[in-house]
Amino acid sequence: MRPSLPLALSLGDPAGIGPELIATAWAARQVHALPPFFAVGGARLLAHAAARRGLAVPVRAISDPAEAAAVFDEALPVLDLSEGHDLPYTPGEPSRAGAALALASLTLAAALAVEGKAGAVMTGPIAKSRLAEVGFTHPGQTEFVAAACGVAPEDAVMMLAGPSLRTVPLTVHVALADVPRLVTRDLIERRGRIVARALTRDYGIARPRLAVAALNPHAGEEGKFGHEDLTVVAPAVAALRAEGIDAEGPHSADALFAPHNRETFDVALCMYHDQALIPIKALDFDSGVNVTLGLPIVRTSPDHGTAFPIAGQALAHPGATIAAIRMAGECAARRQSSAIPA
Amino acid sequence: MRPSLPLALSLGDPAGIGPELIATAWAARQVHALPPFFAVGGARLLAHAAARRGLAVPVRAISDPAEAAAVFDEALPVLDLSEGHDLPYTPGEPSRAGAALALASLTLAAALAVEGKAGAVMTGPIAKSRLAEVGFTHPGQTEFVAAACGVAPEDAVMMLAGPSLRTVPLTVHVALADVPRLVTRDLIERRGRIVARALTRDYGIARPRLAVAALNPHAGEEGKFGHEDLTVVAPAVAALRAEGIDAEGPHSADALFAPHNRETFDVALCMYHDQALIPIKALDFDSGVNVTLGLPIVRTSPDHGTAFPIAGQALAHPGATIAAIRMAGECAARRQSSAIPA
Repeated sequence: MRPSLPLALSLGDPAGIGPELIATAWAARQVHALPPFFAVGGARLLAHAAARRGLAVPVRAISDPAEAAAVFDEALPVLDLSEGHDLPYTPGEPSRAGAALALASLTLAAALAVEGKAGAVMTGPIAKSRLAEVGFTHPGQTEFVAAACGVAPEDAVMMLAGPSLRTVPLTVHVALADVPRLVTRDLIERRGRIVARALTRDYGIARPRLAVAALNPHAGEEGKFGHEDLTVVAPAVAALRAEGIDAEGPHSADALFAPHNRETFDVALCMYHDQALIPIKALDFDSGVNVTLGLPIVRTSPDHGTAFPIAGQALAHPGATIAAIRMAGECAARRQSSAIPA
Repeated sequence: MRPSLPLALSLGDPAGIGPELIATAWAARQVHALPPFFAVGGARLLAHAAARRGLAVPVRAISDPAEAAAVFDEALPVLDLSEGHDLPYTPGEPSRAGAALALASLTLAAALAVEGKAGAVMTGPIAKSRLAEVGFTHPGQTEFVAAACGVAPEDAVMMLAGPSLRTVPLTVHVALADVPRLVTRDLIERRGRIVARALTRDYGIARPRLAVAALNPHAGEEGKFGHEDLTVVAPAVAALRAEGIDAEGPHSADALFAPHNRETFDVALCMYHDQALIPIKALDFDSGVNVTLGLPIVRTSPDHGTAFPIAGQALAHPGATIAAIRMAGECAARRQSSAIPA
């Protein structure tokens, strides 16, 4: 199953591991049967990053995404971008000019997907604090892409997906002390609906099974320690079930990710960042994909950061980038095949 | 390395999976090179549980722990206990009489270890709410065993240990909302010292490496979301280091349990229940051991519950019980070999 349009890949911070992983993914395109993709900007950088990694990756400039498919077999297609075209490759040494290139690449890659010129967007890893210095006002790329699509940030849902597990953190970069207040019935229900729809549309699961993790240990043991699982989580699960969504919970989070339990659900809705990310990173570290659900476009990202300290040293594992490209292609193809002509 | 004294095993709730797992462990004593052990009470029950599991396990009554070693090769030694000696085996159907037997078994097993008649105690899984009905006033077996040793409950430290990982939850059965208030500098330092000493004494690690997990996601990113990692966790880590303990942190908890990070520490100190138990159960579900550190005796337990719904059906995995017996034997032997005669 292949998307009819090539995927747009943003570079991420050019001093991070993003560029070398794009080059590595292209070099592995046949082994992993990757769908055609192109990088947005940074042609010179990408050639240097590939060489530093010891890879023979011919880079070919294109001026329109439509050229990518024909080029892809023989060279890594890179869409022209005036921003940062002469930026030197300085792995591990991020700069303001590099951040500006990262932002320009992300902006154009997302726009091409929104305009229907790219089948999906896979975003490379950025350093948020550096991007903020060049005018990026969003908490992260997820919110940026949502805004590019005209979707409210609260309806763009982050999902982490690996070979072992899919998890959705209902709250993300907030203090642990704020989590009990932020996890509301409305949040669980709203996100639960978006997740259920997306697993059907993008992952082809006819009736997705949602496991909802408890906020408190052992779901609070009937209110003995923490009432939220009784008063907030359980009613939200009941409401989702009443709508015909196969949601279950609240489940004790410690046992939920044990091997025999992982088989019983398609996605786990988690109450906070570490509850969702600890199991994914413990089990699927080198192949975790960050997907944004609920958007009119398909957007994925490798579930790792810029890793400045190891950039340019051929140490970064390409597994997550390859998995993110693959998943973007599969989701895009699924949407396309199920699209009903107007 | 073998302890000179046999290990005492409490039955756990006789309607749970405890008895069948004791019988299964005995049947596997040679394959797993288990040290001699005896069960405390429940001879008839154990014979029935073994038969239900299809195991040929001769059960032999003993009236003194000193008889266990000679019996162990040929039969499962069971110490006489008047309580519940004629209780029928009713797996999956817990009763008040069963709870009374579980409590009597636990009480005697712990006492024998304290009196130096058993090398260690391994406690079988109980149902706390049922035990409470027959006069058990402790939050759990860990606190009960601590009291039997005359140790304050806050100095009896729960550690979960599996082949992949060791973790210590600094708070356990409390609401998530209470965690930020309960995690204090004093708690982290006090438990950190106990853990470091125990890993040397019981596990033979000369200079244990303690990784301290952050309370907030990404350790709060310099106070952006949550200040506790800066004001509480970091100073506690610094204080431990000043005492010569190899503690590091606070570390982002989501990445801490990824494969390459797990190699960098001997134990992770975690701020709350799910942070410590999610990774252990995801990675080591069938071999997780619950150990109590900081006691004058060695105490272990399989890291699972009574599992009433599957009791008596030959479905329960014996891995955690076998691992708990083995670990108890190794820790006891290590203490013994390092003991300096007065």
